[in-house]
Amino acid sequence: MATKTVNVALIGSKFMGRVHSNAYLKVGKFFDLPVMPVMDTVTARDGKDLNAFAQRWGWQSWTTDWKMVVDNPNIDLVDIGTPNHVHAEQAIASLELGKHVACEKPLAGTLDDARQMLAAARRAKGCRTFVWYNYRRCPAVALAHQLASEGRLGRIYHVRACYLQDWGGPATPLLWRFKGSQAGSGAHGDLNAHIIDMARFITGDEVTEVVGSIAQTFIKQRDLIDQPATGASRSKKKNASLRKGRSTVDDAVLFLARFRGGAAASFEATRLATGEKNHNRIEIHGDKGALRFNFDRMNELDWFDLTDPPRLQGWRTIDVTRGQHGHPYADAWWPDAHYLGYEHGFINMAGDMFKMIGGRKPLVPMPDFQDAYITQRVLHAAIESANNRCPIKLSQVK
Amino acid sequence: MATKTVNVALIGSKFMGRVHSNAYLKVGKFFDLPVMPVMDTVTARDGKDLNAFAQRWGWQSWTTDWKMVVDNPNIDLVDIGTPNHVHAEQAIASLELGKHVACEKPLAGTLDDARQMLAAARRAKGCRTFVWYNYRRCPAVALAHQLASEGRLGRIYHVRACYLQDWGGPATPLLWRFKGSQAGSGAHGDLNAHIIDMARFITGDEVTEVVGSIAQTFIKQRDLIDQPATGASRSKKKNASLRKGRSTVDDAVLFLARFRGGAAASFEATRLATGEKNHNRIEIHGDKGALRFNFDRMNELDWFDLTDPPRLQGWRTIDVTRGQHGHPYADAWWPDAHYLGYEHGFINMAGDMFKMIGGRKPLVPMPDFQDAYITQRVLHAAIESANNRCPIKLSQVK
Amino acid sequence: MATKTVNVALIGSKFMGRVHSNAYLKVGKFFDLPVMPVMDTVTARDGKDLNAFAQRWGWQSWTTDWKMVVDNPNIDLVDIGTPNHVHAEQAIASLELGKHVACEKPLAGTLDDARQMLAAARRAKGCRTFVWYNYRRCPAVALAHQLASEGRLGRIYHVRACYLQDWGGPATPLLWRFKGSQAGSGAHGDLNAHIIDMARFITGDEVTEVVGSIAQTFIKQRDLIDQPATGASRSKKKNASLRKGRSTVDDAVLFLARFRGGAAASFEATRLATGEKNHNRIEIHGDKGALRFNFDRMNELDWFDLTDPPRLQGWRTIDVTRGQHGHPYADAWWPDAHYLGYEHGFINMAGDMFKMIGGRKPLVPMPDFQDAYITQRVLHAAIESANNRCPIKLSQVK
Amino acid sequence: MATKTVNVALIGSKFMGRVHSNAYLKVGKFFDLPVMPVMDTVTARDGKDLNAFAQRWGWQSWTTDWKMVVDNPNIDLVDIGTPNHVHAEQAIASLELGKHVACEKPLAGTLDDARQMLAAARRAKGCRTFVWYNYRRCPAVALAHQLASEGRLGRIYHVRACYLQDWGGPATPLLWRFKGSQAGSGAHGDLNAHIIDMARFITGDEVTEVVGSIAQTFIKQRDLIDQPATGASRSKKKNASLRKGRSTVDDAVLFLARFRGGAAASFEATRLATGEKNHNRIEIHGDKGALRFNFDRMNELDWFDLTDPPRLQGWRTIDVTRGQHGHPYADAWWPDAHYLGYEHGFINMAGDMFKMIGGRKPLVPMPDFQDAYITQRVLHAAIESANNRCPIKLSQVK
Repeated sequence: MATKTVNVALIGSKFMGRVHSNAYLKVGKFFDLPVMPVMDTVTARDGKDLNAFAQRWGWQSWTTDWKMVVDNPNIDLVDIGTPNHVHAEQAIASLELGKHVACEKPLAGTLDDARQMLAAARRAKGCRTFVWYNYRRCPAVALAHQLASEGRLGRIYHVRACYLQDWGGPATPLLWRFKGSQAGSGAHGDLNAHIIDMARFITGDEVTEVVGSIAQTFIKQRDLIDQPATGASRSKKKNASLRKGRSTVDDAVLFLARFRGGAAASFEATRLATGEKNHNRIEIHGDKGALRFNFDRMNELDWFDLTDPPRLQGWRTIDVTRGQHGHPYADAWWPDAHYLGYEHGFINMAGDMFKMIGGRKPLVPMPDFQDAYITQRVLHAAIESANNRCPIKLSQVK
Repeated sequence: MATKTVNVALIGSKFMGRVHSNAYLKVGKFFDLPVMPVMDTVTARDGKDLNAFAQRWGWQSWTTDWKMVVDNPNIDLVDIGTPNHVHAEQAIASLELGKHVACEKPLAGTLDDARQMLAAARRAKGCRTFVWYNYRRCPAVALAHQLASEGRLGRIYHVRACYLQDWGGPATPLLWRFKGSQAGSGAHGDLNAHIIDMARFITGDEVTEVVGSIAQTFIKQRDLIDQPATGASRSKKKNASLRKGRSTVDDAVLFLARFRGGAAASFEATRLATGEKNHNRIEIHGDKGALRFNFDRMNELDWFDLTDPPRLQGWRTIDVTRGQHGHPYADAWWPDAHYLGYEHGFINMAGDMFKMIGGRKPLVPMPDFQDAYITQRVLHAAIESANNRCPIKLSQVK
Repeated sequence: MATKTVNVALIGSKFMGRVHSNAYLKVGKFFDLPVMPVMDTVTARDGKDLNAFAQRWGWQSWTTDWKMVVDNPNIDLVDIGTPNHVHAEQAIASLELGKHVACEKPLAGTLDDARQMLAAARRAKGCRTFVWYNYRRCPAVALAHQLASEGRLGRIYHVRACYLQDWGGPATPLLWRFKGSQAGSGAHGDLNAHIIDMARFITGDEVTEVVGSIAQTFIKQRDLIDQPATGASRSKKKNASLRKGRSTVDDAVLFLARFRGGAAASFEATRLATGEKNHNRIEIHGDKGALRFNFDRMNELDWFDLTDPPRLQGWRTIDVTRGQHGHPYADAWWPDAHYLGYEHGFINMAGDMFKMIGGRKPLVPMPDFQDAYITQRVLHAAIESANNRCPIKLSQVK
Repeated sequence: MATKTVNVALIGSKFMGRVHSNAYLKVGKFFDLPVMPVMDTVTARDGKDLNAFAQRWGWQSWTTDWKMVVDNPNIDLVDIGTPNHVHAEQAIASLELGKHVACEKPLAGTLDDARQMLAAARRAKGCRTFVWYNYRRCPAVALAHQLASEGRLGRIYHVRACYLQDWGGPATPLLWRFKGSQAGSGAHGDLNAHIIDMARFITGDEVTEVVGSIAQTFIKQRDLIDQPATGASRSKKKNASLRKGRSTVDDAVLFLARFRGGAAASFEATRLATGEKNHNRIEIHGDKGALRFNFDRMNELDWFDLTDPPRLQGWRTIDVTRGQHGHPYADAWWPDAHYLGYEHGFINMAGDMFKMIGGRKPLVPMPDFQDAYITQRVLHAAIESANNRCPIKLSQVK
């Protein structure tokens, strides 16, 4: 059993705060790690429920002052689970003080921020950076990467990716995710970021041009969350509409792209795909084979092998839970077809993070700031293309 | 039983020649028609097997001279199942001689041709025109149209359509479908034509702009079909490659578009989607509901009803075979879930054609030259957008 | 093109009358046959619509006297599409007059009838017999047979078959299918007959014992169809229930069986499987591979190949439409994934029938009276087991 | 936050030991509990890795002497995750010392054992008993129970359940699961136990008769696990087969049953269903609706609502992850369609266990010894029916 420990500080106690806490709680139970995480400190702006959060999850201390945490010499790894517009400040400060940094995706709210984060990462010798592109470690996606790396797709003709959600209808109020100043973008940074990363990860190829793009805010006004709670306003609710505020992010972004190897690609992210709750889908066709993945069937990978005898060819649904036969990450978990869920991608990633900090190799490539900056450039190019109504070459986006 | 008859002449004896012949053979057996088709004459350029074809299918006569057929005053309906570049000449000649015309899709190989065909149709008072957009009468697609028309989708946010085939790999020789002069385009006119028509048909809305487009010929050189069969050449085969010719059509076209009602749409057609044989898929999301259709499950329509109680919401897979309960065209056929196939879309369309010629209404809107010209403009705009690397408004495409 | 003809007489003009007529109409268009069917005469008890039926389908004559037809020396093949209780008389008479006989399944309403039909078939040298177990020639089922015959399943452990329909709810009146005297049985003879035949056909193995069985009539009283239409009765309708009659057939039969090769099998047929319209499903597991078929996905066969490398194993969905690559019957029809429907199994079977009459071999084994008698014995054993509440060995059923 | 604690002792450190440890680790993080589990002691026969196991999972102590643990007055809850043949001794001892008991399923290896356990539970006033039928708390199964309880199925005609695995091929050695003396039975107690429980849980109805049954050991001899490792034996391996031992459990059990409400049911459990890794499937059809569940799609429940307008009826796939809309257990976890896995059923059950110990009600009915004894009787009746080759009424099984 590992004796070395890594003291972790987590910034953020909302959705990602819970997901990351769960990952630190479980990773050492399922993976044999060279270094063991210690859940040292949790920090968040809003202190109201932070004590309870810390107790519940077993964080040894908590504070609302993230800078104090970063300053703390006992902390080895700073995990950033905050809105995108503060990633840069928190990551750069942490790196400058010699911490490893794990940052939520997308790397930043703006390309400028991302560039500065990358520069800080390059300066911080000895610090590891990690970006929580968790779907890479969904076992089916990791297997897709492995199959493509083994040459089973051949020359790739097509990449077709979409990430569809439907929670952003008109009844959804003006959460921070609809504010450009905090979120940077809407569905684009939240969802396209994932599928751009997945496409790059699986194919091993890079986008060279965004050919055309639509960025659309279908619902321009949303209810404000903090409505005055006076009796007057409450009675008004019945007669008139709530006070509204302006959504300053996209609800959906679609774009077409070319890859260096020649593939023609499409990407779409939306929060208004009625009926699709979390439909993260990618389809890749090459001249030797093809792959399909869909998070609704997250424990399965569809593979079409064009080298099978034609009469017997068919989409093969691989149940990617068979650790004894080499399915990625599966040996850490349960027997065949005793399925994994959403959270396991994060735990698998935490496993690789601590392996890397301990000097070992990750099972599949880990996105660091360098890598995530490339995805950020594609995100940026897509918005430029939408705004300027023209193709954008990635070589123009620095 | 009908006593009036409609004498049909068919031009073309290849794939569509067979499909249309089958439709004429069967339509009167399954539909109660006000006028009955008579399979009068089949004509095709290549006379070699035409006699056998005519005998097999029960055409009363055959000839290699399509003009003679068009001239024949006994012919009431000319059915054009030829390559796209000859549609215009054949259709215009037929219309000028007062025939009804049923023309294969897309309407023409070029927008110019299509415009002239439309003009001829407008001049030919009393002549009906039909365009074989057969998928409209695939019962699931017809039901999708009905549900949308009833307002079950509400305001439409997204249309996502692709038509994926994989027969166009490097081993496929230089068929006429790869020659721009005959086919007009490749996957675009062949496949995007269908999904543009389906999107328009189901939503009842029109494309106003193509925002960006990729048209790609992945495989630029293909084997010539008619290789010199000399001993020399045959021995060369073993040592060297076959003689090659240039493919002058796209293998794939992807484009993004906006609809008048605000929907953001994507379309993709390809012949290189390894593993997908004939995957014609459309997904439409509105603020009241959503629809999914996929020709691989051609007897099913997926519907998501956002007005269901949230706890019980789910994608509902409707088996569209229940004629007694109002599923389109199903009452003409077999009992529940005794499934229909590809050919039935054509027979259903033939049923509506002869109803219309007999003065009745079709079950769902029929694409005529006017309607198909609109689809042709979208096809044209997509190619213009790809070539000029800029958005194209449909109002600019006449 | 064939010059020899086979004059066909069809008995029955209801559901199967339509299906068989359609098969005769189309078979010569899609298959190259050594002998060509001529649609000579149709006969049915109820003459009211028979003239119209004959005209519509192109039968050259019609009569309500089936015996006259059988006597007619011009008739070569008698096709029996009548309720089960008259199969024996019609088939035996036809065979004694030297006709080929095609009989709807199950072979007969009782085992006695079936035994006499088999004896007649044995006496009638030179007469072919065919039984319309149409699912054998659904291409996916034919491919399943081929794969099993090639040894791709190995030793078979399990057969799991069910045929589920839901049209038999309490609102369905007392049709002939609910009368034991005409139908012989309910779901059992109608649906279990098919899956017993399919199991035998695919595995090439035979049932040796029915181990246990449930035969159940859930709905014992059903509305009579021909209610007296007097004013009195009509007003009664509003106040009281309709006149009822007794259903004398099973609504559902489930049974367990053993095969000679050791497989443990289950069969279930029902008309009360709410939500399942025509769900004909079979799953077979062997020590080298497994197969799954389901008529709701009738153009697909699922195959699991245990000889694949374990890491890459998965259920392979074979789209069985690729004639050029050897998929059964597919070369007669349309290009890849231009799907077939319910009716095509009958046309494929007609193709094989006329090939056999012309001296050729069928593509896959054809069920004749000898073969269908074996299925009838299994049907009988299942009912015996249900009635006597004990296992029944097939060796006891003669 | 809860202040009362429940000291837990776990017996068993293999598969179920891990699964239960994980449940205790996580339950308090995701559920608000009136009493909090303390992971006090783990015990197992084999002490070799027990220290490491205890450290890894955070058990405060460990021992190989389970009796000492049961004697320990500090322990409040004894969790039994051992082979079936020791359940009785461990559970009875625990109950007699006033502990709550959570026992793995099936309740016992024999009906005698189960009866004594039930008697002990009845005597132990104030002690709660729980049986780990975890699938009840797979959210889709819990929702199925709720829908049926609300009357959405109506009168139930059919239950069709199978639990298919394929790990029991000839290459699998003679593990304890193949020894009747330890396991009591094979696939039957392991897998049929689950689907019997699920059928009872969802329908709220009880089996009254097993009508017929097949219990089959396909692979009678299996390799012994502990082979002498001498050089002689090793060289023998190459020439001769390994030493074999006799499997004394079933590989598969199939049976037919009747429910009190009249439903006709089939159950099948097997370890030889090639291609099916953990396929736990149940289908229930009533006169108002139907349900389908399949663990391969564990986050989905299929529901067919016969009260929908017929034209719009279809199988509705409910994504059961929407806690804010009342999906069972989902509010404890992640946002919509951020899927759960196998382990979550156990954590959900642990949540209900500690709620019940704290005086609250479980979300859905909890199986205790009384309830699990009923399932045990059905298991017993199925084996009796197989052995005696006759139907067995449950009223005869005490």
